[in-house]
Amino acid sequence: MKHIGIIGAGQLGQMLALAGTPLGYTFTFIDPSHQPCAAGLGHHIQAEYDDEAALEQLGIECDLVTFEFENVPALAIEYLKSFTTVHPNVQALETAQDRLNEKTFFRNHDIPVGEFAAVSSWEELQAAVANLGLPAVLKTRRFGYDGKGQRVLKTPDDIQIAWKELGGTPLILEAFIPFTREVSIIAVRSIHGEMAFYPLTENVHRDGILHRSIARPGDWMQAQAESHARKVMEALDYAGVMGFEFFQVEDRLLANEIAPRVHNSGHWTQNGAVTSQFENHLRAIDGLPLGNTNTLCHAGMLNFIGKLPDREQVLRIPGTHWHDYHKEPRSGRKVGHVNITAPTAPLLEERLAHVEALIEPA
Amino acid sequence: MKHIGIIGAGQLGQMLALAGTPLGYTFTFIDPSHQPCAAGLGHHIQAEYDDEAALEQLGIECDLVTFEFENVPALAIEYLKSFTTVHPNVQALETAQDRLNEKTFFRNHDIPVGEFAAVSSWEELQAAVANLGLPAVLKTRRFGYDGKGQRVLKTPDDIQIAWKELGGTPLILEAFIPFTREVSIIAVRSIHGEMAFYPLTENVHRDGILHRSIARPGDWMQAQAESHARKVMEALDYAGVMGFEFFQVEDRLLANEIAPRVHNSGHWTQNGAVTSQFENHLRAIDGLPLGNTNTLCHAGMLNFIGKLPDREQVLRIPGTHWHDYHKEPRSGRKVGHVNITAPTAPLLEERLAHVEALIEPA
Repeated sequence: MKHIGIIGAGQLGQMLALAGTPLGYTFTFIDPSHQPCAAGLGHHIQAEYDDEAALEQLGIECDLVTFEFENVPALAIEYLKSFTTVHPNVQALETAQDRLNEKTFFRNHDIPVGEFAAVSSWEELQAAVANLGLPAVLKTRRFGYDGKGQRVLKTPDDIQIAWKELGGTPLILEAFIPFTREVSIIAVRSIHGEMAFYPLTENVHRDGILHRSIARPGDWMQAQAESHARKVMEALDYAGVMGFEFFQVEDRLLANEIAPRVHNSGHWTQNGAVTSQFENHLRAIDGLPLGNTNTLCHAGMLNFIGKLPDREQVLRIPGTHWHDYHKEPRSGRKVGHVNITAPTAPLLEERLAHVEALIEPA
Repeated sequence: MKHIGIIGAGQLGQMLALAGTPLGYTFTFIDPSHQPCAAGLGHHIQAEYDDEAALEQLGIECDLVTFEFENVPALAIEYLKSFTTVHPNVQALETAQDRLNEKTFFRNHDIPVGEFAAVSSWEELQAAVANLGLPAVLKTRRFGYDGKGQRVLKTPDDIQIAWKELGGTPLILEAFIPFTREVSIIAVRSIHGEMAFYPLTENVHRDGILHRSIARPGDWMQAQAESHARKVMEALDYAGVMGFEFFQVEDRLLANEIAPRVHNSGHWTQNGAVTSQFENHLRAIDGLPLGNTNTLCHAGMLNFIGKLPDREQVLRIPGTHWHDYHKEPRSGRKVGHVNITAPTAPLLEERLAHVEALIEPA
């Protein structure tokens, strides 16, 4: 029976522990928060992510360590590695946590990606805009998530405003991509190199935060997404679940970003797939055979942002599966989600619409 | 967000907590063991089940209390009721924890049951054997589970041996039932009277302990089982999941026993049904709408008795779902189970056979 360490004790840590307990694992979390939501499911070390004593304790306590978010300091992982095994690896982490590294990595591996340019000065920004044109999106290279740290530039006036807000940290300017769909693939690779892919997921974001996902088994873009994900995982010698987001433009997928962890757009797998992404992440990093990634039925997910809707009303709708992160309500915060399953696609759409009507605007 | 108390912190408590955490519940367990397997998923009060101070603490801490085994002292429940709400009720508990009460209850409610007789003396035993004939089964009225506290009487010589072993406590003699199948139904009724029934499960016991279960959606005995379960739940004003075991003889189901709790023969619902029995138990006692009880695929379960087989080998078989109770190996002890799912019935049989071959005899 192995003891697994998780860096971060948010909802992803919570759901990893819920999936891992039946597999025989026990868990220790490191998280600076007072009562993070996964804390009740294992041992919680309350410490900053760069606290060496805490990392040493985690490393000594655990046979294997993973993380639930990509902004873990790479140095923390390097330090941990002298005590225990860590997956995914530092290379994956460093690729994912810097948008410029990430986009450059895609380009170097012949994965289609939109135009982009590094921006570290006002002059570079002006040159990049001249080159890429408007609209474009100015983003911080690091620490961005859920739409944070980015500004859309539509008119020349926006350029200076965005620079005032974001200038001073390393930035990237990305050409605006007139996409027809946002899709993602949840891929998994074990330490032995075994790979598996979930069906493509169609995503809708609102204010930069994922709003809803629907699994699309048999989608015509599946092979393309798998090919890109396979290439990335092999190049990084990756172990674990990886979320890979794309913009679809005509018949091509343009790489947006990878997350070296379980991913919000894969939450539907908890109730709609033979094996959840959380279970497969643990199987992958511990070298167990991967579980089947097929769907069991039509499945989708809606995020609860800011606060939960009425639980009883939601559960009155057939095929709804409630996932409460045990967090205090707060504007813009992911506090839970509902997975929705149905025997047919139209019924799934109907149920999704029904639940959406119960969610008050954030 | 409610705090739920569970009397007993064994594997059923563990699986209730795993199912209930996403619903937003937190848990407190009362259990005399030092490190019972559910303890890591909530607050553990280490105390005997009749410890009034501990029960008071549980009652004050929890909005709602339930139990994971039927040998809870009825007085403990009565005591708890002055502090909080408890489901299922004392009437259900007292009916289920005494085989004579239980069988009499079935008879009084026109639910077919095998012949039986109360036995409290050697004379009564002899009279009962004369009346029911041999073979027959002598059982303690209370505290029996997993084949414990019972002896099969085949020859007249067995009678005295069994009496020496079991005499002195209240007993029941049951006519031996030449059944063609053992089946069970997992039924659920909410505090509002809403009811739902899972598909009939076909069970095989070994040495009195459940060995394997297979869900049989569409079985021709489904309506009969539902009718009996409905009658029992309504008569007891029951709230929660109830496991109801039957012997099938020709085209009739004879009631064997009810368990006023989640039941081993319903473990397949964790991976094979839209909603698991654990989630539905919590929904029922908290008055939430019940979840759909349909199967998602063909599903079955194998218990791990005494020790776990090799996890990696089992997980290499497609459709296997590992459930480790985090218990020390011990002869005759349930230490885990595997749920097996498959898209077709023959494939399920094949996978079950494959896993069975990996389980060493206990």
